[in-house]
Amino acid sequence: MGYSGPEWVKDSVFYQIFPDRFACVPHDKSRCMYSFEEWNSQPTRKGYKGGTLDGIRNRLDYLQDLGINAIYLNPIFWSTANHRYHTCDYFRVDPLLGGNKAFDSLLAAAHRRNMRVVLDGVFNHVGRGFLPFNDLIENGPDSAWVNWFHVFRWPIHPYNGECEPGYACWRNLPALPKLNHDNKHVKKFLFKVAKYWLHKGIDGWRLDAPECIQTPGFWEEFRVRVKEINPEAYLVGELLPEATEWLDGNRFDGVTNYPLYGALLMFAGQDYLEKMHVKVTMTGIKNPIDGNNFLSKLQHIMQLYTWQATLLNLNFLETHDVPRFLTIVNGYRPALETALVLLFTLPGAPTVYYGGEVGVVGKDDPDCRRSFPPESAWDMTVHNMYKKLIALRRAHEVLRTGTIVILGGKESAVCYLRHDETHRKTILIAVNADGKTNRLHFNVSGLKKILRSDRVLCGSGTLHLENDQLTMTLPPRGFLLAGG
Amino acid sequence: MGYSGPEWVKDSVFYQIFPDRFACVPHDKSRCMYSFEEWNSQPTRKGYKGGTLDGIRNRLDYLQDLGINAIYLNPIFWSTANHRYHTCDYFRVDPLLGGNKAFDSLLAAAHRRNMRVVLDGVFNHVGRGFLPFNDLIENGPDSAWVNWFHVFRWPIHPYNGECEPGYACWRNLPALPKLNHDNKHVKKFLFKVAKYWLHKGIDGWRLDAPECIQTPGFWEEFRVRVKEINPEAYLVGELLPEATEWLDGNRFDGVTNYPLYGALLMFAGQDYLEKMHVKVTMTGIKNPIDGNNFLSKLQHIMQLYTWQATLLNLNFLETHDVPRFLTIVNGYRPALETALVLLFTLPGAPTVYYGGEVGVVGKDDPDCRRSFPPESAWDMTVHNMYKKLIALRRAHEVLRTGTIVILGGKESAVCYLRHDETHRKTILIAVNADGKTNRLHFNVSGLKKILRSDRVLCGSGTLHLENDQLTMTLPPRGFLLAGG
Repeated sequence: MGYSGPEWVKDSVFYQIFPDRFACVPHDKSRCMYSFEEWNSQPTRKGYKGGTLDGIRNRLDYLQDLGINAIYLNPIFWSTANHRYHTCDYFRVDPLLGGNKAFDSLLAAAHRRNMRVVLDGVFNHVGRGFLPFNDLIENGPDSAWVNWFHVFRWPIHPYNGECEPGYACWRNLPALPKLNHDNKHVKKFLFKVAKYWLHKGIDGWRLDAPECIQTPGFWEEFRVRVKEINPEAYLVGELLPEATEWLDGNRFDGVTNYPLYGALLMFAGQDYLEKMHVKVTMTGIKNPIDGNNFLSKLQHIMQLYTWQATLLNLNFLETHDVPRFLTIVNGYRPALETALVLLFTLPGAPTVYYGGEVGVVGKDDPDCRRSFPPESAWDMTVHNMYKKLIALRRAHEVLRTGTIVILGGKESAVCYLRHDETHRKTILIAVNADGKTNRLHFNVSGLKKILRSDRVLCGSGTLHLENDQLTMTLPPRGFLLAGG
Repeated sequence: MGYSGPEWVKDSVFYQIFPDRFACVPHDKSRCMYSFEEWNSQPTRKGYKGGTLDGIRNRLDYLQDLGINAIYLNPIFWSTANHRYHTCDYFRVDPLLGGNKAFDSLLAAAHRRNMRVVLDGVFNHVGRGFLPFNDLIENGPDSAWVNWFHVFRWPIHPYNGECEPGYACWRNLPALPKLNHDNKHVKKFLFKVAKYWLHKGIDGWRLDAPECIQTPGFWEEFRVRVKEINPEAYLVGELLPEATEWLDGNRFDGVTNYPLYGALLMFAGQDYLEKMHVKVTMTGIKNPIDGNNFLSKLQHIMQLYTWQATLLNLNFLETHDVPRFLTIVNGYRPALETALVLLFTLPGAPTVYYGGEVGVVGKDDPDCRRSFPPESAWDMTVHNMYKKLIALRRAHEVLRTGTIVILGGKESAVCYLRHDETHRKTILIAVNADGKTNRLHFNVSGLKKILRSDRVLCGSGTLHLENDQLTMTLPPRGFLLAGG
């Protein structure tokens, strides 16, 4: 099968929403049906703040104004965990979020604005409340669903922490029983789920922990089933390590780009990194890196996948699984700006994790899942950074699809081009992560021919281009976009 | 509100189906999705035999041939108990039964034959797999659903038999958490369930354990909501004791007639009663009763409710909650025949509990829930009794709606009339539960005028009517229907 991916992803700026925490509708009557924690209280492992899909729908103007044109929703199916990764019912949107009707409305409203919606699919494991598993709890070995799971010994101990659970579960957590994907009926069930929501009109699936499903051919068949319904559906796998074999065209269109996340954080953070907040399992590295080190990592990452797949990866500075960027860099906004300039000018779809754009902070989960603050508490400096850079990316196709040409780095400064031969467009990006001014000089044969303009689009540095000689001065934490 | 009940019930002969056990479709592909016990194996408390709604649909010809024109289904919603009284999802028919689509097909097929379908509604308590309750298990006091139940103390112990559960549950069984009907949102939810299935087209609700819901006005409002959608919907409460106040027109149309069940069993059973199988909690009495005793109980029962309500009660000889009739009377078929003659000639809708009509036996639950046997194992003597008596009831409206005139009893024989003044129809019913011949003699002023014919419609006795003098001879275990 020839490789083809959804073109729209290349032009997308995603906004990742943790549904319980993005927006509630304070005067919503249904809100009084449930017991919610105070919206502005600290995140807890248990308990809900009461964000809803109607809340999201009410904020589509805001998102559109920010420049967002795609939404990735953390899980929304009925689950008995506030993060909803413990799926209990794959065919029902959680009533706390407003149920299926609210989702239909949100999807329609988003589509009217040409905004795409990608859902989070957790298909490796389920919550204990998933009824086929509850059937095992209630009936033991006589359950009709016994072949839907991997039971090692009876009785199972789903709720007795003192005993081994007795069944396969994700990271040996009894709360997350693993499905038996070798059972063809389980496979069929999961494909049915995927298709059900695609028929509803969703634009893709972000697939949780896909490497845990080791049944041969599962993801290949998943892809076929999905693409039969919508060839433009986006399939993005949550894969932490390099995942070359996952993007050979037979499984996913893109992956969550954790290697890039690590490089961006470690380069932009520099001395401001609070090491206690660096999750090495997610970043891969734990110490700051200089410009050349960053560029060599970037070069490596850009070669991991086909160019097509590279453009379809999901790039980010923060997610629901890592501390907020600003928290890791000790609240130092210039470091965030450094990282944002890179994020919005590199290949791959940039993702804004809800609230990051107004300076929300937070340590590791659950603290990185704070409720979206009231406008009075927004950090408008941060907001303007995001808005400006999103607008630049949206305005210049070359930033989205142009090839990348790495010019080089020096100390904590780097420089690269995005270049589109066909449309004869080139933009130069130079970033200085240093606390002092950096001068960069490159002598690149033919540079003048491709970087036809030295007009500064954005940033605070200066540049001079003459006879393929490029000279730049970047003030401390300065950056520069030039060309067009 | 003036009292009005569903007229169709008066003309109905119900067939009660325990869905896991009535009929499977052996070559159904979906059967291999699940682990079922052997169809013909003994009933167990846990584990499923795999009966389906498609199975029922395939047997509608059989039911119609038997004379059935209404079906009462034991619970069909997704539950993790084979009897499905532990409701986990009120909006989904259990996938083991074929799911919602199979139900739609069954309902349509039944309605095409003018057969009514009544569902079992368990609205007092839920199963532990009901997701709002699972949310409590998973989140403790932080659950969003905490007000949907009655929690006495935290932590709750839903799966630790050594501790008090810590929440209200039916008969203190932790598997059956009681809903909080004082919460208006819970009420609204349950009314929504009731309405959802009425909009689908069901003909009524059999309501489980209604006396457990003590929130004032709950059942009154339930009735209003139901009748708004379908004034002809049948509401029948599972009430064991006499329940006069429940049938005053503001709650139910009828009740499960346990007082009559006890009287029928104790009169028809006589010396054949196996006392160890008599569930006194259900029969109210534990010793055989003679004819006059039976008639005085009958008289009492007939005066408990308005005549309208009496005609709308659900009469039966066996259910999923009591041993099979034949088992209680030690397999003595004439005792069953005695009871059947009474059941099918008394006021109130007679109910056949699946398999009773082919002589299925079984002790107390779960043994009274055996799988329907293959035709080779049917007791055709019993089958013919049922068929003949059902046909008589269906043929003679007076047996369904005529007033009852008790003539009297002697030893273990009884005699009464069903009389319809308007249509000038009267049928005399005389039953001898004795092992010896009984002669009955009555001198009833005006009898000749109403019982215009002494033609024997059915039975083995003889009768002579002259000048209001009625004389009958009933052979041992004989009976007699006469008139027309």
